[in-house]
Amino acid sequence: MNRVAWNSLTAPERAQALRRPAQQVGARTREAVATLLDQVRARGDAAVRELTERFDHVVLDTFAVTQVEFEAAAATLAPALRAAIDEAAGRIEAFHREGMLREYAMDTAPGVRCERVLRPIARVGLYVPAGSAPLPSTALMLGVPARLAGCRDVVLCTPPRPDGSADPAVLYAAMRCGVRQVFKLGGVQAIAAMAFGTETVPRCDKLFGPGNGYVTEAKRQVAMLEGGAAIDMPAGPSEVLVIADAGANAAFVAADLLSQAEHGPDSQVLLLSNDEELIDDVAVQVTRQLAILPRADVARRALESSRLILVDTLEEAFAISNAYAPEHLILALRDARAWLPRVETAGSVFLGDWAPEALGDYCSGTNHVLPTSGAARYVGGLNVASFQLAITVQEVSREGIAAIGPCAVELATAEGLDAHRLAVALRLEEVAA
Amino acid sequence: MNRVAWNSLTAPERAQALRRPAQQVGARTREAVATLLDQVRARGDAAVRELTERFDHVVLDTFAVTQVEFEAAAATLAPALRAAIDEAAGRIEAFHREGMLREYAMDTAPGVRCERVLRPIARVGLYVPAGSAPLPSTALMLGVPARLAGCRDVVLCTPPRPDGSADPAVLYAAMRCGVRQVFKLGGVQAIAAMAFGTETVPRCDKLFGPGNGYVTEAKRQVAMLEGGAAIDMPAGPSEVLVIADAGANAAFVAADLLSQAEHGPDSQVLLLSNDEELIDDVAVQVTRQLAILPRADVARRALESSRLILVDTLEEAFAISNAYAPEHLILALRDARAWLPRVETAGSVFLGDWAPEALGDYCSGTNHVLPTSGAARYVGGLNVASFQLAITVQEVSREGIAAIGPCAVELATAEGLDAHRLAVALRLEEVAA
Ligand SMILES: [Zn+2]
Ligand SMILES: [Zn+2]
Repeated sequence: MNRVAWNSLTAPERAQALRRPAQQVGARTREAVATLLDQVRARGDAAVRELTERFDHVVLDTFAVTQVEFEAAAATLAPALRAAIDEAAGRIEAFHREGMLREYAMDTAPGVRCERVLRPIARVGLYVPAGSAPLPSTALMLGVPARLAGCRDVVLCTPPRPDGSADPAVLYAAMRCGVRQVFKLGGVQAIAAMAFGTETVPRCDKLFGPGNGYVTEAKRQVAMLEGGAAIDMPAGPSEVLVIADAGANAAFVAADLLSQAEHGPDSQVLLLSNDEELIDDVAVQVTRQLAILPRADVARRALESSRLILVDTLEEAFAISNAYAPEHLILALRDARAWLPRVETAGSVFLGDWAPEALGDYCSGTNHVLPTSGAARYVGGLNVASFQLAITVQEVSREGIAAIGPCAVELATAEGLDAHRLAVALRLEEVAA
Repeated sequence: MNRVAWNSLTAPERAQALRRPAQQVGARTREAVATLLDQVRARGDAAVRELTERFDHVVLDTFAVTQVEFEAAAATLAPALRAAIDEAAGRIEAFHREGMLREYAMDTAPGVRCERVLRPIARVGLYVPAGSAPLPSTALMLGVPARLAGCRDVVLCTPPRPDGSADPAVLYAAMRCGVRQVFKLGGVQAIAAMAFGTETVPRCDKLFGPGNGYVTEAKRQVAMLEGGAAIDMPAGPSEVLVIADAGANAAFVAADLLSQAEHGPDSQVLLLSNDEELIDDVAVQVTRQLAILPRADVARRALESSRLILVDTLEEAFAISNAYAPEHLILALRDARAWLPRVETAGSVFLGDWAPEALGDYCSGTNHVLPTSGAARYVGGLNVASFQLAITVQEVSREGIAAIGPCAVELATAEGLDAHRLAVALRLEEVAA
């Protein structure tokens, strides 16, 4: 763990202390991904089948998960895990439902009714990675809002296991969200299949979900193609920033830092405190907890680029956090709520000693697909609106155009758009006649 | 105008009839834009000054619009135009205010308070093109929601006129929205200045607004850079699709088609009708109105790729429209409102004979920055939320973690994330102690 005192740093050193490792993918990766995308686009299922064999070492005749497989998954899953998935889904659904966009209508002038109507995005593609372990929680975080939005086709891809089956917890989570179009596909081939469609995988309008560097690059590329699929948000390594005061529990803080560190070797971990003793204690606790951690090798690599930063005041800590714009922000502070108004940028905020980031990952009810790499400066996390279209409508009567038409004529004239002027003027004449 | 009968077309012909012209920019444009961006990034104001001289043929010492210039603009503007800007701003503000995101909070379990808090995006950059004419309406469409969101720094760039001044109507519209950081900059150099910041132009987190092909390409490139600015939405040529029945007014429909056509030679114009006579009448009216149109040359070029499509039924027209996903959709139908539920994709919808698209461009209250090129399949138009961050928060008490902690432990175990499990388990032990 790297320890620094903020007030001893020069401006360039400060910038360096908050710098995230560059995520630019190399030209070779970019070209490799582009080639794979082209293959799937051109040859559909045949290409997907070849790539699955090449990368997942599994030969699959069909990718679609069958009813029999769904039922087997539900039957084989440990009841405690099934119950946990149900319980988490319930809270995620409750929180997301409350935050749904609403339709509204108002008369902006007599005879001019303006409104916003909502439609689900018709076809959405959800990607649930497996990587080091399957992620049923991600299936919930994507599937619950997709279903609340009412998307017609909800397609979910998740990599096959060596025996050609899908992870039963992921399948159960998908079922829990009413998602039945599940395909045993991973990596670039999954993204390509959903973006372009194949003989068996429906083409999707927008793709969601995390993934490794190849998946992220594939999403980026399909989003840039004309007629390609949109994507949920730019994705980078996961991050946590903890602001802790003298009263914080060092063991809890250390566990929170390690939670983040175990996500991957490129995870970003920052601790800001105005108390040197707390920083000392956290460092000790990190070492102690690391000793018994199964994923210690991953965590250790992430901690190499982590920072424990001593600040003079908590106000300073919030200024640093707002500039960094962390994905996860933990406020291990006395009266954490009172500090919330200072938060200007963050994906999700955890208030107090009893709110580890792990609760947000799984089951508090908030979404765990959040902006990384500083994107919290300009975008929030996934929510039902990410799966909805807000369409504006104007209904205008004769009275309405009489009321607002002259304003449009004036502006169209100023902008030199004569056909616009005429489209209004013709109607005004007719109304006056 | 190209006339086709839908039921006489083969599937490939149908696809062709709805195909938008390819918008891929050439490698040369891409490189030229990249070079300009690099110049501004490296040399700031000096580069911006050189590029302004080169492209706008104006030598400017300072780009920032001064208080004196603002006052002069307000004083010189015709009172009728000033009033029209005020009137439009009022309705745009009323409609957008009603649709703002709201904060909310709920207990998802005893002791687990989850909420969404809102923050404005701190620094936003608005681009108001001049092109063939200045666009005060665009200043309103960008400035009103930015101000409603409460963005701290609202920066607006608009190209200088040959005499080095900014258009007074644009300045007045900016003032009306409380936007005072206005810079006389256009094109790629404006986008670069806002994305990277210069000595005088603040760096912005997100960029908004339409522009020509170079501006669009510049926005696309800065959005892809690490640490670059986000952008509002993918931009393409403007589009209208009109669905008209036998009772529609052919002169009105023709005027609406021409309104769209005069936006630019690459504008997309489609008419769908189940009445051949109406199509005949519209074609006659288009020719008649075109004869007196100042921008007839532009409109004529757009009409070359326009289509008048005879359909068998209105249901078929809606299926075509939903597949096309038009930016503007005009329903020149008897009982247009009854057809609204059939609309699945569109940027903005205009109901009935008295709702020309020009009203939405200027002053009905809805936003005129809308998804083009089929993006209406997956994104809606600009609104206040485009300028806001929704941050999720969880506040958890001892009681709260006791209630939901075991669920998180179960899921963390299933996902093999042991530090996550530990971060919860440590706290559960402490609560139980
Ligand atoms: Zn986590
Ligand atoms: Zn228009």
